[in-house]
Amino acid sequence: MRRMGPAIVLVGMVAMSAPAMSMDTLVKCHTDDQNWCMQQHDYSAQRYSTLDQVNTKNVGSLQVAWTFSTGVLRGHEGSPLVVGNTMYVHTPFPNLVYALNLDDDKKIIWKYEPKQDPSVIAVMCCDTVNRGLQYGDGKIYLHQADTTLVALDAKTGRELWKVVNGDPKRGETGTGAALVVGDVVMIGVSGGEFGVRGFMTAYDTNTGTRLWRAYSTGPDDEILFDPEKTMSLGKPVGENSSLKTWSGDQWKLGGGSVWGYMSWGPKLNLIYYGTGNASPWNAAQRAGPDGKRIDQKWTASIIARNPQTGIAAWAYQMTPFDEWNYDGVNEMILVDNMDVKGSKHNVLVHFDRNGFGYTLDRATGELLVAEKYDPAVNWSTGVDLDPKSETYGRPAVADSKSTFLNGADVNTLDICPATLGAKDQQPAAYSPKTGLFYVPTNHACMDLEPFKIEYSVGQPYVGATLSMYPPRGESHMGNLIAWDASTGKIVWSNKEQFYVWSGVLTTAGGIACYGTLEGYFKCVDQKDGKELYKNKTPSGIIGNAFAYQHDGRQYIGVYSGVGGWAGIGLAAGLATQYEGLSMGGGFLGLHEYTALGGSLTVWSLP
Amino acid sequence: MRRMGPAIVLVGMVAMSAPAMSMDTLVKCHTDDQNWCMQQHDYSAQRYSTLDQVNTKNVGSLQVAWTFSTGVLRGHEGSPLVVGNTMYVHTPFPNLVYALNLDDDKKIIWKYEPKQDPSVIAVMCCDTVNRGLQYGDGKIYLHQADTTLVALDAKTGRELWKVVNGDPKRGETGTGAALVVGDVVMIGVSGGEFGVRGFMTAYDTNTGTRLWRAYSTGPDDEILFDPEKTMSLGKPVGENSSLKTWSGDQWKLGGGSVWGYMSWGPKLNLIYYGTGNASPWNAAQRAGPDGKRIDQKWTASIIARNPQTGIAAWAYQMTPFDEWNYDGVNEMILVDNMDVKGSKHNVLVHFDRNGFGYTLDRATGELLVAEKYDPAVNWSTGVDLDPKSETYGRPAVADSKSTFLNGADVNTLDICPATLGAKDQQPAAYSPKTGLFYVPTNHACMDLEPFKIEYSVGQPYVGATLSMYPPRGESHMGNLIAWDASTGKIVWSNKEQFYVWSGVLTTAGGIACYGTLEGYFKCVDQKDGKELYKNKTPSGIIGNAFAYQHDGRQYIGVYSGVGGWAGIGLAAGLATQYEGLSMGGGFLGLHEYTALGGSLTVWSLP
Repeated sequence: MRRMGPAIVLVGMVAMSAPAMSMDTLVKCHTDDQNWCMQQHDYSAQRYSTLDQVNTKNVGSLQVAWTFSTGVLRGHEGSPLVVGNTMYVHTPFPNLVYALNLDDDKKIIWKYEPKQDPSVIAVMCCDTVNRGLQYGDGKIYLHQADTTLVALDAKTGRELWKVVNGDPKRGETGTGAALVVGDVVMIGVSGGEFGVRGFMTAYDTNTGTRLWRAYSTGPDDEILFDPEKTMSLGKPVGENSSLKTWSGDQWKLGGGSVWGYMSWGPKLNLIYYGTGNASPWNAAQRAGPDGKRIDQKWTASIIARNPQTGIAAWAYQMTPFDEWNYDGVNEMILVDNMDVKGSKHNVLVHFDRNGFGYTLDRATGELLVAEKYDPAVNWSTGVDLDPKSETYGRPAVADSKSTFLNGADVNTLDICPATLGAKDQQPAAYSPKTGLFYVPTNHACMDLEPFKIEYSVGQPYVGATLSMYPPRGESHMGNLIAWDASTGKIVWSNKEQFYVWSGVLTTAGGIACYGTLEGYFKCVDQKDGKELYKNKTPSGIIGNAFAYQHDGRQYIGVYSGVGGWAGIGLAAGLATQYEGLSMGGGFLGLHEYTALGGSLTVWSLP
Repeated sequence: MRRMGPAIVLVGMVAMSAPAMSMDTLVKCHTDDQNWCMQQHDYSAQRYSTLDQVNTKNVGSLQVAWTFSTGVLRGHEGSPLVVGNTMYVHTPFPNLVYALNLDDDKKIIWKYEPKQDPSVIAVMCCDTVNRGLQYGDGKIYLHQADTTLVALDAKTGRELWKVVNGDPKRGETGTGAALVVGDVVMIGVSGGEFGVRGFMTAYDTNTGTRLWRAYSTGPDDEILFDPEKTMSLGKPVGENSSLKTWSGDQWKLGGGSVWGYMSWGPKLNLIYYGTGNASPWNAAQRAGPDGKRIDQKWTASIIARNPQTGIAAWAYQMTPFDEWNYDGVNEMILVDNMDVKGSKHNVLVHFDRNGFGYTLDRATGELLVAEKYDPAVNWSTGVDLDPKSETYGRPAVADSKSTFLNGADVNTLDICPATLGAKDQQPAAYSPKTGLFYVPTNHACMDLEPFKIEYSVGQPYVGATLSMYPPRGESHMGNLIAWDASTGKIVWSNKEQFYVWSGVLTTAGGIACYGTLEGYFKCVDQKDGKELYKNKTPSGIIGNAFAYQHDGRQYIGVYSGVGGWAGIGLAAGLATQYEGLSMGGGFLGLHEYTALGGSLTVWSLP
């Protein structure tokens, strides 16, 4: 057995409480919904604001209150932050940060413009997006495209410290938002299409000193898994749970990148995040020594870790031996006391790229519910939910949709969902008013043809061509759905013409708001999805709706600025970003609706 | 005497009526205010819409109806056109054109993207602006930065013809909007800061064949002046009126560029436009053979020409021997039957960069009124209005503000207005409801130090350093004023923090609307200037407000997208565009309010 690092021996699974002072400040910020203190709204990532001035009765009267152009053209993911009287606006590369004074006509208090080598753009697979700043204890955390993590003084924009988290020359880039827990700030890495071996890293918020790094693949002491204490589906993972699911050294190029929104639960003191696809996409290159499927842990998985030590409490792999690029990075939404099949659980709800909506007990990692949240999903017939079964937790793969069984250089047709998943980074929201989840989805299928690809440092490492399109016989490519996570059922579903690549906001006013790729901002009734408000913003929306209150007035806002993977054809020209990955027909037509341009639109009642 | 071309001999001052059919189509478009058929709204350039659904009583309830990002960051001057159910949106370089379907959710019917050598940007003095498309008889006319004039099929965006009007390698660029009169489309040229010899050129709308070209400086047969019949202030201009006001060959680098909005009066069949500054700015290099001032005609002048022949009917020079870069290109607004000092006149009203508001009889070119429309103006004590005087029509220059008398390498202080004029390209509007003009002004002064500059083809040819700032003791840099052109008096004046670089719209609803550099769109009461509506757009506004009606609903819109000369510090970075021209303190602070980004915002009542 590889020796575990001393931290594991000393600390194990014992929850460490975060230092009280900075934690309190941050929690206070999060619990006052005049603010919007983190990308996820709160540590549970529910994206539910208790503000109710704007509600189902009056939301139809919303008006544009003010707007702000960011000065950057390409895809704008994430949202601003609001802390007290200041709003923090970010942009895609070059990753500008503006602090706007809400007390003084939105004047720019400070602007931060990092110096970055623009060559990083060449290794950003899916537009030059950035999923947003984070706030903690008077600091704004910016994760630059070049992987630099910068702590800025929230009042002045002064650099307090910065660290380089990865190497763009190896294809490592920064697109995800950090997570701040007490004195620890954690950040992942992007690059699953460049053979990057994914990791999560924790830094001291006061100094930028690295505290720990946990890879997604590799030996136990590098993935920070305890063979005895780290659990999966109720059992210890055992020795080298990752290494023994790979052939040879393939785990070193394993993928398992980390770039989605993360969550934290204070009681168990665990952070939750997902890992990306195994790489390359051509699964044949990752077959086991026997030429058969092999899991490739811990790619396409949910991992729960202690934020102070990094040690994993549990992990669950949604898509073993991924053959479709079904990253597992989508956000984890935490809800307490959910009644599932007659028992109460503190759950984690996760809408995976693979098209299944998962409900797990977040203390144990036990899988409670796994159902298709897009009826088109056909790569799997279902997930085994019987804890006594040998295949507990595993999806049953449909042979006809297996790009591995069909083999390299064979085009497997009509696989649903498409490679960008039934949902991608765009976060869903939960509403305690209805007990439902509001999920922005992609409704698309694909033809995928794998081919052999050689690894070359910093070069695309995909090995597949594909095209994407609406499910056969349908013409729309997105839905906003309301989901019951206790039963795994769609409660209602609203059609959208294009992928819904915008994060949803829910509020105590009973509304759910989101944007569309054409550029519409919409608010619907949480109960039945009835459209109550619609307004055209300057560009297509891939940002996340958010809310705040200032001087007694509630505001709702969203970035527009088309791009991201969903709008890469517009953002980077019709040429694909890297060889071998055709964006196909799924994006056709968007250029008839909108053009590039990053801006923030903020609405309020008259 | 140089021989005049045959056209002059044959046609002289006889007004030719335009071919009826295409003229009728265009006039019909202009007279239906559901459309916004030309940049100037109408041939009189009054910018007055008869729409009154939005009026002083309800304008406060305006809401953002829809928005459209153009995908281009830099300064957005001009406005869209609306012809029937289609809106035509343009951008600065690369000069994209979008046709939007107002009947179908503003879908992009077609997009035109010219191929241009980006090196043209290096010879654009004052941002990469474009003052807009023009429409005529089923064609959309685009004037590209590289001087190419393109006729596009308005329905399909197909190129019908294109001609190259100038040569960017010599500093000739395209920023102005064309003027279409019947089967003639006329376009000028920019480049006054590069030693360009300005000209106006007419092309056949059906074929693109060049009909005539009239330079601003040079021999009679090249400026298309008839010594006997072309008049100035009631007298024939005489032989070689331009040549004999220059030393040697300096007229070949003369300036007199042509890039403002033009007008046309059907009864006299005359077009009216202004010419730019004499070049270089360093006036000493342009002194007469005796070392004294010499006029340098026809720079900084108004010229009236027949659109079919190009022959000038009359001309008037506002700023002889310009020492301050007071281009005369600002728009000419035509009003009939104005009572001036007891007589009725069909007048031309012009707010010059030099700070004087001029009222002329547009049949005779007689000067009726010339008064300061910014009280700060100090370079001149006044313009001689006595037709019997030898100095009739001439400004009296204040010696202390003469950069020529003070000499090269001497910094002349506190000259008002600054070099960008009391008003620049941003067009004023007229309202027949009040009989007043609504003028967006710059309220700034400068220190200017001329220096000797050698001419080199395609290189900046300025010869001056300067700084600009608010008038001493004041802190605001712009005003919106209401002007009585019959008396030359300011009726009311609203302060603005920055230059008002946005064109004004007046409507039958009694409102005057415009934008600000910080990004506010405002509507005020024509009567007293009272602010009735204010809304923050994504970026600073240098575009022109416009109105249209669709499906029975009135809309008001404006481009935002900070830049232009007023925002060049933001648009091109804080560095100046070319050596020797410091933008100085006048722009300080704008970066605290807004960032780049081109978009259209359209408002309507709820």
